[in-house]
Amino acid sequence: MAADKAPAPLTPNAIVAAATAGDWVRIAPDDLLVMDLAPDAAGHARRVVIQVMPPPFSQGWVQNIRTLVKAHWFDGIAVVRVQDNYVVQWGDPDGEMPGKAKTLPAGLLTVPQSEYVSPLTAGDATAGPVAFTNDAYAPLATFEGGWPIGRSQSAKWPLHCYGMVGVGRNLSPDTGTGAELYTVIGHAPRQLDRNIALVGRVIAGMENLSSLQRGTGDLGFYKTAPERTRITSVRIGGGVKDLPAYEYLSTNSRAFAAYAHARANRKDDFYIQPAGGVEVCNVPVPIREVLVAGKR
Amino acid sequence: MAADKAPAPLTPNAIVAAATAGDWVRIAPDDLLVMDLAPDAAGHARRVVIQVMPPPFSQGWVQNIRTLVKAHWFDGIAVVRVQDNYVVQWGDPDGEMPGKAKTLPAGLLTVPQSEYVSPLTAGDATAGPVAFTNDAYAPLATFEGGWPIGRSQSAKWPLHCYGMVGVGRNLSPDTGTGAELYTVIGHAPRQLDRNIALVGRVIAGMENLSSLQRGTGDLGFYKTAPERTRITSVRIGGGVKDLPAYEYLSTNSRAFAAYAHARANRKDDFYIQPAGGVEVCNVPVPIREVLVAGKR
Repeated sequence: MAADKAPAPLTPNAIVAAATAGDWVRIAPDDLLVMDLAPDAAGHARRVVIQVMPPPFSQGWVQNIRTLVKAHWFDGIAVVRVQDNYVVQWGDPDGEMPGKAKTLPAGLLTVPQSEYVSPLTAGDATAGPVAFTNDAYAPLATFEGGWPIGRSQSAKWPLHCYGMVGVGRNLSPDTGTGAELYTVIGHAPRQLDRNIALVGRVIAGMENLSSLQRGTGDLGFYKTAPERTRITSVRIGGGVKDLPAYEYLSTNSRAFAAYAHARANRKDDFYIQPAGGVEVCNVPVPIREVLVAGKR
Repeated sequence: MAADKAPAPLTPNAIVAAATAGDWVRIAPDDLLVMDLAPDAAGHARRVVIQVMPPPFSQGWVQNIRTLVKAHWFDGIAVVRVQDNYVVQWGDPDGEMPGKAKTLPAGLLTVPQSEYVSPLTAGDATAGPVAFTNDAYAPLATFEGGWPIGRSQSAKWPLHCYGMVGVGRNLSPDTGTGAELYTVIGHAPRQLDRNIALVGRVIAGMENLSSLQRGTGDLGFYKTAPERTRITSVRIGGGVKDLPAYEYLSTNSRAFAAYAHARANRKDDFYIQPAGGVEVCNVPVPIREVLVAGKR
């Protein structure tokens, strides 16, 4: 009369694989930045694809980045800093040198620091199905439209999880235009939340940034020009012919809730002792490439 | 009558720099593993220094690793796996192939999974000065003897923070001898806590592992032998002539408490909005190299 042995619980990856087509959300090609780095030492192409954040988050900076891309301003700049367990940063290597800095295009906005956060609206009455009340940095951590988001009673803001992309700045909070960007390559430096603008995340080719040689100067800046990696071009995805389509798993879907639950309670083959918990940056939002008829 | 402007609060790094000599604890050279990788493409030496965990944690596996090092068993094995935002793993590339696997030395222990955790003792009545009751994975997270430690009411265990080193295993929890090791190169995969043995942490040369090319096979394993990085030797620190001494900041010191507090409440120059919190793996224990008379 013994019950049959229960089947092993699904892994988080298996839950994602079983999600239905309707659980996935196509990312508009015009919300993608396609950043090509110079080929590696073996001659292999290195492409990084970044998704920019939708409204209401950081739209002034996102607009600046679009202006910079349209002007081809990023073409020929370089990765200037790689600090282990922290960030990879790219920009104009001569940006701080009067007379040598690359001229910025017209029309860039000065975005005030108040826009590091966005006011809560009526639509925010409830959080999504996955929310954390024990987050160490924010009163509430959740997901909105596929992004990790922190909340207070009046405001919300994006979170510095692995692969998120932000706007480098100097000490004054209003100095970051979007011409210098960074991505997180280590444990989430959540102390940066609300102190700097996040504008997107790397959704493909992250390894082309995270595996770069670490800089040996202060803060991981490269000491010499030859150590830098050149960025050959940055283009809006809609104008790139050979780009696949990308989708993220809706963070309001049941599949995402099940995936997050499984990540907090691993009981599949390898696991003996489920944690019974997980934090927001250890629930990376699943992204997939999809083949599109007429495209590759 | 206005008060003078208060000086800017110290940065976490400045607090560490101001710690007194008595706040630092020398790591015994015999608790260090010195792992030399084959030189990189430019011919530069690549050394990784690992500190093994003290009692009561994981001592069966630590003993196995000492046995393997003394037999020079690690010499000639390789880094076989680099999975982005997860782990770098090294071991015998032929370890799974009957007849081809490198013969293990005599005397290795089979350590039971019960040793993934250690019982609390009378000395654990209080946690150290830095402890977190809102940890997402453990009832309490704290530091003990310089290590990040989780606790329940009856047991304690080390935590999978960036740079921690653990024992690779197959599905059976008793299969990991210590001949295959990994280190964390991304956001802390805390779901592994209590599911696998942690035996130490990388204290120098982490960039020589974290910047390796990611593997393109399943789970980040390299598909071909030339992609692997050869480990030329692993030695106990006490037998390595040119090794500096290393110290960690005592996690019971006031300096460490001040450093952790500052990491949770950044108000130095760059910061506008202190988080008011931090999680255990975002408080890396400071390590320093010290020059020792008679050594380099």
